Amino acid sequence: MPVYNFAAGPAVMPAPVIAQIQRELPSLNGSGMSILEVSHRATDFDRIITDAEADLRALMQIPDDYAVLFMQGGGTGQFAAAPLNLATDKRRIAVLDSGQWAVKAAQEAAKLGRQVDVVASTRAAKYTRLPQMPDTLPAGQYDYLHVCMNNTIEGTAWHQAPRTGTTPLVADMSSNILAEEYNVNDFGLIFAGAQKNLGPAGVTLVIVRKDLVHQVPGLPSMLDYQLFMEKNSMSNTPPVFNIYAVGLVLKWLRQQGGVPEMQRRNEQKAGKLYAFLDQSRLFHNPVVSADRSLTNIPFMTGDAALDAAVVQAATAAGLMNLKGHRSVGGLRASLYNAMPLAGVDALIDFLHAFEQHH
Amino acid sequence: MPVYNFAAGPAVMPAPVIAQIQRELPSLNGSGMSILEVSHRATDFDRIITDAEADLRALMQIPDDYAVLFMQGGGTGQFAAAPLNLATDKRRIAVLDSGQWAVKAAQEAAKLGRQVDVVASTRAAKYTRLPQMPDTLPAGQYDYLHVCMNNTIEGTAWHQAPRTGTTPLVADMSSNILAEEYNVNDFGLIFAGAQKNLGPAGVTLVIVRKDLVHQVPGLPSMLDYQLFMEKNSMSNTPPVFNIYAVGLVLKWLRQQGGVPEMQRRNEQKAGKLYAFLDQSRLFHNPVVSADRSLTNIPFMTGDAALDAAVVQAATAAGLMNLKGHRSVGGLRASLYNAMPLAGVDALIDFLHAFEQHH
Repeated sequence: MPVYNFAAGPAVMPAPVIAQIQRELPSLNGSGMSILEVSHRATDFDRIITDAEADLRALMQIPDDYAVLFMQGGGTGQFAAAPLNLATDKRRIAVLDSGQWAVKAAQEAAKLGRQVDVVASTRAAKYTRLPQMPDTLPAGQYDYLHVCMNNTIEGTAWHQAPRTGTTPLVADMSSNILAEEYNVNDFGLIFAGAQKNLGPAGVTLVIVRKDLVHQVPGLPSMLDYQLFMEKNSMSNTPPVFNIYAVGLVLKWLRQQGGVPEMQRRNEQKAGKLYAFLDQSRLFHNPVVSADRSLTNIPFMTGDAALDAAVVQAATAAGLMNLKGHRSVGGLRASLYNAMPLAGVDALIDFLHAFEQHH
Repeated sequence: MPVYNFAAGPAVMPAPVIAQIQRELPSLNGSGMSILEVSHRATDFDRIITDAEADLRALMQIPDDYAVLFMQGGGTGQFAAAPLNLATDKRRIAVLDSGQWAVKAAQEAAKLGRQVDVVASTRAAKYTRLPQMPDTLPAGQYDYLHVCMNNTIEGTAWHQAPRTGTTPLVADMSSNILAEEYNVNDFGLIFAGAQKNLGPAGVTLVIVRKDLVHQVPGLPSMLDYQLFMEKNSMSNTPPVFNIYAVGLVLKWLRQQGGVPEMQRRNEQKAGKLYAFLDQSRLFHNPVVSADRSLTNIPFMTGDAALDAAVVQAATAAGLMNLKGHRSVGGLRASLYNAMPLAGVDALIDFLHAFEQHH
């Protein structure tokens, strides 16, 4: 029985990448040494990190005036790094409150002494739709506006970057980077923890417009964009294996046809699941149609005990980690790039059969 | 031909651990999911991180009044975390300047606004011996004293914790944790990046006396000991794979006989290499005998071109990554726990033969 992993993150990775890691684990490039043992100063690793950056640049069409950094600490690390590096002038940021991860970003910035203005929120609607970017965002008031592009918990996503005028846009893209096409030029800063759509947990991608990066006094080195930019992410030992694994995923993505092909597949996968849910008598997805995520799809019966029974039966059928986030309840299917269409079909078949026999 | 990896870090790992990782990579505990794909909230991972902490506690006899944290950012991360969490009262720390990594720790603390007093230094002796702990360290003047227990670059080590009286001792133990016995009670804080003696780069062990940890306002979450303590290192997604790999190394260490057995082997390995170097006409180690490291052994001929030729010939013979740190020159053999005696014997045989034919 095949197993399909619908976890929100850490999450499914491409099977050929897992197979390649396994195959070459004892000896990288015939060196007799494992990627787990290879120095970050070795030629082999230099090629790995250089390739990873080049592949990411190709996949996202990242212009030369943006730096690509490999950092540690996940989204939470960037909730601190972004204000510490970029909110140094007005020390004031705007936030679009689209869900829990946006709230966490706002809280971290506030903890670090930044003024945080929530300029729009759909909290009252239980985040079942996206807040609307105000037309009136005042120019020159904010160091940046923070947006969580894909709300992993609530299942919403901006499919176009919110328009912020001259205010730089800082985007948490952890759960849909490379899942759909965006124009990097619309952003001042994009960051993403790897563990959803890029590889194993332990490395964080940062794409930042170079003119926004400057020397900030008194910054911890591990959060210092300028230092990471100057040292090509190797001021100290980077997470070698994690970068290697992300690099393999990026190569796999290019082989598959890149982001346009991923978006096509993700629209197909998500489209099939949403179509099922929208016609189901038992299950429903609470998000308004235009704001639905391609990668994270919450759904529920309305009866918590029944939801739990569905999760249990699904697990027994090899459909894993479907339990919804406790704040939303019900179930959640995460359909990242590495989730094959067959997994979505199996899920729909299962849900359909459950509904029939219910 | 066997390959022996003498890199200073990332470094050699136990062969049985690499084999186990390879074997179970596609399916952790028969789950059909890779450790690279497993959620940090999964039962399987809970067992992994719980075991890792328990095994570390057993290996180092860590008392209950110390917390064990799994963080990110390596030693450099802790160069910031230690002063930010512990130097909040007097905002003043003492440093024993035993080499480059102690200097880096001092620089980071100073960058973060702490007053840093170097209370002893052997810089003038090119760090070929350890600075002597002053008898007169004034009580109540410093939040802590920082020491780098094993100086990876210079090849020196404290085999006993320096006595600091009532001043807490903060120890960077990155390159000799679990390589020799220390009494955890002598320390306020011990930290170690994994990539030398513990596993792959990307996770950092912190052992801290709980009474030194308190709520510090305005701290980035990823550097916040209190938060990591409260949340069992899982306030956000930890580096799952890296913790898993470290956990396997800890189990391997216990199977081998723990730290006393490692120390015995390391004394044997290092003893053989030092004995060879001390009788050699061609090679010498510059460190005074009492202060020599068990894990990092620099040596040289005194002729940079000849040193380079030795490195090149050694590499051809499968003795890898022997080039010394650029600041010391010559060669350096790192003999971490995972380096077998056979590797040291092969190195000595090679050096002996080189010397004979020179």
